[in-house]
Amino acid sequence: MSISSVKIVGSGLIGTSIGLALAQKSVKVLMQDYSVDSASLAQSLVDPSAKFTPDHVFDVVVIAVPPSAFRDVLVIEKELNTTSTFVDVLSIKTKPQLEVETLSGLQERFVGSHPMAGREVSGAKSARGDLFTGRSWIFCPTEQTAKASEKTALELIELCGAIAVRMSAQEHDQAMALVSHAPQILASLMAASLNGANPEWLNLIGQGFKDMTRIADSDSNLWQEILSENSTNIADVLSKVRKELERIESNLADPNSAKEVIESGNKGRSLIPGKHGGVARKYIYLHIVIDDRAGQLAAIFNDCAKADINIEDVSIEHTPGQNTGLVTLSVLEAKKAEHLEQFLIAAGWKVHSTSK
Amino acid sequence: MSISSVKIVGSGLIGTSIGLALAQKSVKVLMQDYSVDSASLAQSLVDPSAKFTPDHVFDVVVIAVPPSAFRDVLVIEKELNTTSTFVDVLSIKTKPQLEVETLSGLQERFVGSHPMAGREVSGAKSARGDLFTGRSWIFCPTEQTAKASEKTALELIELCGAIAVRMSAQEHDQAMALVSHAPQILASLMAASLNGANPEWLNLIGQGFKDMTRIADSDSNLWQEILSENSTNIADVLSKVRKELERIESNLADPNSAKEVIESGNKGRSLIPGKHGGVARKYIYLHIVIDDRAGQLAAIFNDCAKADINIEDVSIEHTPGQNTGLVTLSVLEAKKAEHLEQFLIAAGWKVHSTSK
Repeated sequence: MSISSVKIVGSGLIGTSIGLALAQKSVKVLMQDYSVDSASLAQSLVDPSAKFTPDHVFDVVVIAVPPSAFRDVLVIEKELNTTSTFVDVLSIKTKPQLEVETLSGLQERFVGSHPMAGREVSGAKSARGDLFTGRSWIFCPTEQTAKASEKTALELIELCGAIAVRMSAQEHDQAMALVSHAPQILASLMAASLNGANPEWLNLIGQGFKDMTRIADSDSNLWQEILSENSTNIADVLSKVRKELERIESNLADPNSAKEVIESGNKGRSLIPGKHGGVARKYIYLHIVIDDRAGQLAAIFNDCAKADINIEDVSIEHTPGQNTGLVTLSVLEAKKAEHLEQFLIAAGWKVHSTSK
Repeated sequence: MSISSVKIVGSGLIGTSIGLALAQKSVKVLMQDYSVDSASLAQSLVDPSAKFTPDHVFDVVVIAVPPSAFRDVLVIEKELNTTSTFVDVLSIKTKPQLEVETLSGLQERFVGSHPMAGREVSGAKSARGDLFTGRSWIFCPTEQTAKASEKTALELIELCGAIAVRMSAQEHDQAMALVSHAPQILASLMAASLNGANPEWLNLIGQGFKDMTRIADSDSNLWQEILSENSTNIADVLSKVRKELERIESNLADPNSAKEVIESGNKGRSLIPGKHGGVARKYIYLHIVIDDRAGQLAAIFNDCAKADINIEDVSIEHTPGQNTGLVTLSVLEAKKAEHLEQFLIAAGWKVHSTSK
């Protein structure tokens, strides 16, 4: 069986993006939301000409509402769609799975899932059909899940262009506590430590602090539900960090202990897979001082293109108090980096390279 | 009096970069190091033709050695240079100041300082004369410091193109504990939490975790000295974070408590000054899906230049498992962002914008 029609309940960024991705693959999509305006906007973006009879049988019902609304939506939709496969896309997985198990007749056709998509965007109007392209999309079938429903969920994920990763709901929530939820709290705590700090000190904040606290800009409404519903797993991670902190506080005056903290972090960082899902790679960095005006970046990247070197990453650091900036280009191979450096220097740029 | 000759003890990145900056301003520079090879390399980079008589009187002696070597160097150089102003550039300030106070005849002509320069680079060969251009350079004269020495230190900072920021040694170390040293430890701890984690989970790591732990790549030899010598101030910051963690662990199941954590972090982040030392600014972000090959970035920045819009920041996120990337451009004003978005869409790019 192939998916031909899908009802999406929840017309925010994720729901609408799923709608867009499916519509691009000629799936008929009905967008719904507790806000009629949001549903109407999403429908007009996704599939404006779609018409469904009131008794239309959808292949899939996608639940893309906040965790707090999940149960109510499920109860209603279960009655309306007695044969459809249900897929939720909440950022936490254990609690929704438990809700499903309290409702009769849904376990077999329910598949929990979580697309790993960006969080900086929100709302139907920020949605896009390629939001999931090439991203991991965790799905959590249980022993009760029917094979047909599991297959349908997999097909939905593939239609959205994502890569399906099978995992139990419990494991998902533990993994997210480690790689997303606990880091979110530490970043927020570090950012919060600026509240009440001497304003002069704030001018000394460098790129390291900014990088570390970037995710502290996250939306509090979204995160209050994620954090509170996954609180047990998060507390497990935080408590380990806290005990480490306590140990470090007492031992930090010992240089060997201080060194151990940094080395252990170096080791952990080296485990992070690099781009394209491969292992972490070592970059060569080229640092270039530029005037902070339109056209400078274009000029640099033009010269990189002329040198035929692929830039793996780029960052811009602004200089406080004056209108210059430092652009850092990451290049994968030492030979290529050297070639590019020579090329850029010949083109008149002030370049210096580092491998750390 | 104007600075005409400087002796720099310590020919690493910072010492050699100071040498280069001064030589560019026609100051005569002698580079020294415990390693004769390093000193010789640095001298040839900085001022190859410089000749000094053994009894040459330097206006300034700059101490740019690791904290652990500071006292020994000071004792030797004090005897050799009985009238010079001494300036150190260590990343911590209280301990060196205390060392100075145990040595007779140096307090009046010693000025502690700390240039806020990048840490990703190391060694004389990575040095450059514009490393300090436009950067903050903290200096810490005491009540014992002679006005003439203070003036000389200020002149040195200005010759290097940096912006002098006056602060007591104690305040410097407290500020650094908050904005640099404690965040370093938290980032290292978070990265270290990956050690022993399920390898499958590592594939779920997103940009947020990577940003947050970027500084966990730091050099352990450098940091063991910084952390151990400023351990008291760092422990103060860490202990507050730890107590907050303990509170959060117990209350996280309460959504209001979870929300408070994120909101408090949002507030702290909003205090971080934006580029060029001004107040934090709100950016509009344009997200563009690109093929991950040479020339794509050049093409985007060319189009940005054609649109005559200044890009404030840029980031590249790679998609695991396939060769596409997501480029995010930050633009300062909504109108400019809208103009650029229209322009880029017309040029054939897939763009969508967000303001968060």
